[in-house]
Amino acid sequence: MNILVVNGGSSSLKYQLYDMEREVVTAKGLCERIGLGGSRLTHTAMESGVKTVYEGAMDDHKAAIAQVFNALVASEGGVLKSHTEIDAVGHRVLHGGDKFTESAIVTDEIEAMVEQLIPLGPLHNPANLAGIRACRDLMPGVPQVAVFDTAFHQTMPEHAYTYAIPYEYYDKYGVKLRRYGFHGSSHRYVSERAAKMLGRESDPNFKVIVCHLGNGSSFSACKGGRSVDTSMGLTPLEGIPMGTRSGSIDPTILQFIMNREGLSMDEMIDVLNKKSGVLGISCVSSDFRDIDGAAKEGNHNAQLALDIFRYVGKKLIGSYAAALEGVDAIAFTGGVGENSGDTRAAMTSGLEFMGVVLDAEKNAERGAERDVSAAESRVRILVIPTDEEFVIAADTVRLTAAGVTPDSQ
Amino acid sequence: MNILVVNGGSSSLKYQLYDMEREVVTAKGLCERIGLGGSRLTHTAMESGVKTVYEGAMDDHKAAIAQVFNALVASEGGVLKSHTEIDAVGHRVLHGGDKFTESAIVTDEIEAMVEQLIPLGPLHNPANLAGIRACRDLMPGVPQVAVFDTAFHQTMPEHAYTYAIPYEYYDKYGVKLRRYGFHGSSHRYVSERAAKMLGRESDPNFKVIVCHLGNGSSFSACKGGRSVDTSMGLTPLEGIPMGTRSGSIDPTILQFIMNREGLSMDEMIDVLNKKSGVLGISCVSSDFRDIDGAAKEGNHNAQLALDIFRYVGKKLIGSYAAALEGVDAIAFTGGVGENSGDTRAAMTSGLEFMGVVLDAEKNAERGAERDVSAAESRVRILVIPTDEEFVIAADTVRLTAAGVTPDSQ
Repeated sequence: MNILVVNGGSSSLKYQLYDMEREVVTAKGLCERIGLGGSRLTHTAMESGVKTVYEGAMDDHKAAIAQVFNALVASEGGVLKSHTEIDAVGHRVLHGGDKFTESAIVTDEIEAMVEQLIPLGPLHNPANLAGIRACRDLMPGVPQVAVFDTAFHQTMPEHAYTYAIPYEYYDKYGVKLRRYGFHGSSHRYVSERAAKMLGRESDPNFKVIVCHLGNGSSFSACKGGRSVDTSMGLTPLEGIPMGTRSGSIDPTILQFIMNREGLSMDEMIDVLNKKSGVLGISCVSSDFRDIDGAAKEGNHNAQLALDIFRYVGKKLIGSYAAALEGVDAIAFTGGVGENSGDTRAAMTSGLEFMGVVLDAEKNAERGAERDVSAAESRVRILVIPTDEEFVIAADTVRLTAAGVTPDSQ
Repeated sequence: MNILVVNGGSSSLKYQLYDMEREVVTAKGLCERIGLGGSRLTHTAMESGVKTVYEGAMDDHKAAIAQVFNALVASEGGVLKSHTEIDAVGHRVLHGGDKFTESAIVTDEIEAMVEQLIPLGPLHNPANLAGIRACRDLMPGVPQVAVFDTAFHQTMPEHAYTYAIPYEYYDKYGVKLRRYGFHGSSHRYVSERAAKMLGRESDPNFKVIVCHLGNGSSFSACKGGRSVDTSMGLTPLEGIPMGTRSGSIDPTILQFIMNREGLSMDEMIDVLNKKSGVLGISCVSSDFRDIDGAAKEGNHNAQLALDIFRYVGKKLIGSYAAALEGVDAIAFTGGVGENSGDTRAAMTSGLEFMGVVLDAEKNAERGAERDVSAAESRVRILVIPTDEEFVIAADTVRLTAAGVTPDSQ
């Protein structure tokens, strides 16, 4: 079974082709500058290692998908005889609002629902829709599945998702104004893997804190395989400081800066999304490896950025341990969570009082899924590489194989 | 020694007169509608219980202070022969920025410094200054002491007070753009009392989480008598939802609402300060007693408001326990913290995993300073009535008696 996974951005489109019998990626690539001129597709056939670059106009997402089909069947770097060998397509969709508690096979109705949610994901949802529409046009009859970044967190209780603002705003705008949370596919995957690693798959009391740390970062508190709280909010801006996002700050700061800098609200939110976080503090980079390097050379602000990131992460672990009323495991994932032993060590240091003890040697080793806690640690500390694309592919197989119709319809 | 404690608001002025030999309040009162017409002073002589009301124009804070002097020496309700019996005045000042790490005897220089901090406390600092200036004019030579709500938290480390926004903003505006924290006199008093109750006054490793819960609410993490973190931020808006303040929310919510409601930034911040919090969620009241009553009658939103307040409080306890790397005591104070056993129970429930066990019976009793934790609790749970005015009076005595000059000069 060949599953194409598509992640549509406003002027870009990422894809991976899975052979799901073997659970391997056979090809992947990226379309850039869609509709901007100077478009370009970079395609890699995984097993042969052949990398091909296509330059030429891609005026819209439909043209981009057509180009992807070309690349998939080309004599050089092709991995299929015809694009009709694609059995189904899984689309990453940022915002499912409170309409989608799980993935859904795309119908006209589902498409309309994703469109209604554009106010909650003004940049991403239109791009995700463009990818969906392009595929529906170009491969009629082939099932398209939408996998939402928010869906996994829809099990949060009301007291965890409601903001303390005038209640009239909650349900006034056609979309609910509340915490949603993101990185749902990753939190779901990692919390499931953690339960499996510890032999607690079907235990409704298994409690894990998932720390997804990358350029975007979010934490979740999961109990019995369900998300009960998460650090991102209405949008991915809230929570822990990230590569370029501020995370939570005193809202008065917006007023203070806007008045003095003459910024509009849109410009201010742009600063908080794109020029803040560890980039903003360090003045070095949004990439943790660069910041780490600068910190090791004595750059004060780089070290401060790392200290803040790690300190807020540690506080979130304490916070979610309290929310869960105890915790069985802390699972690190994402580029930084998987690869930065220093970050894992800092975020779990001094937490012996709640039964958390890292094994420094195990933590320093590289590897795949593993337990890096000390033998005496009451709480297991796990490293679990995430794979959001695989989750999307697996959901696509699950829904299309079962002929499921979405429960949200 | 007679110490007058003054808390100047924009159109109001609260005062208490202390006899510091006996450590008792001899008179207290409130001037309302200063400069607005229909001004009114309500004065109570504490020991006789005589209450007097003065109506008549108070055009400014100077007129209000003059009226307070009249009330203090009046034949009915007076407690002094002459206002010259006042030995010193302590002023509550909201924002001391990063200039004031402790209280200061007011000089022209100090006055100018408080004035420079107006951008950080645009409503409060001018009112506090008006009270200071009125007293300096009317009682030349009598020492005036400024006690800052922010001072106690100035021991926070850089990684706790720095926001993850572009670093250029930090030091661009004459005042530092950072977390300050408030309720400092209360956090200081309660953390000191907690140490004393447990016989750990001079222990640099004594760790206490102070939960100041009232109409305004804030948490602090204190180690060895020093604040290392606190939940309010640049302004009192940040942190846990309060009577009318939202606490921390996704900054994108401001953009979302402002665009749809046509609100200006100032109007939006006003909504977040005055119409949000438990008032906003419950649609009942900002007073926790009213909300509690409505919740008990089955009002869903009232219960939701309580649940959110308590849940966020519990998460803050977990968060600060992690920040402190373990905790010896959790101290509740403020109107809600002192009087609501339900709130204390909810915020500490399920925290056995970190050694926190409440004694339900002790918690249900009313009383003064007390330990409400179970005998087996590794962490002591304390109820400590706060007294910010007394802290101000005591600081005023300490500074004027010692002839201290502020270390910030």
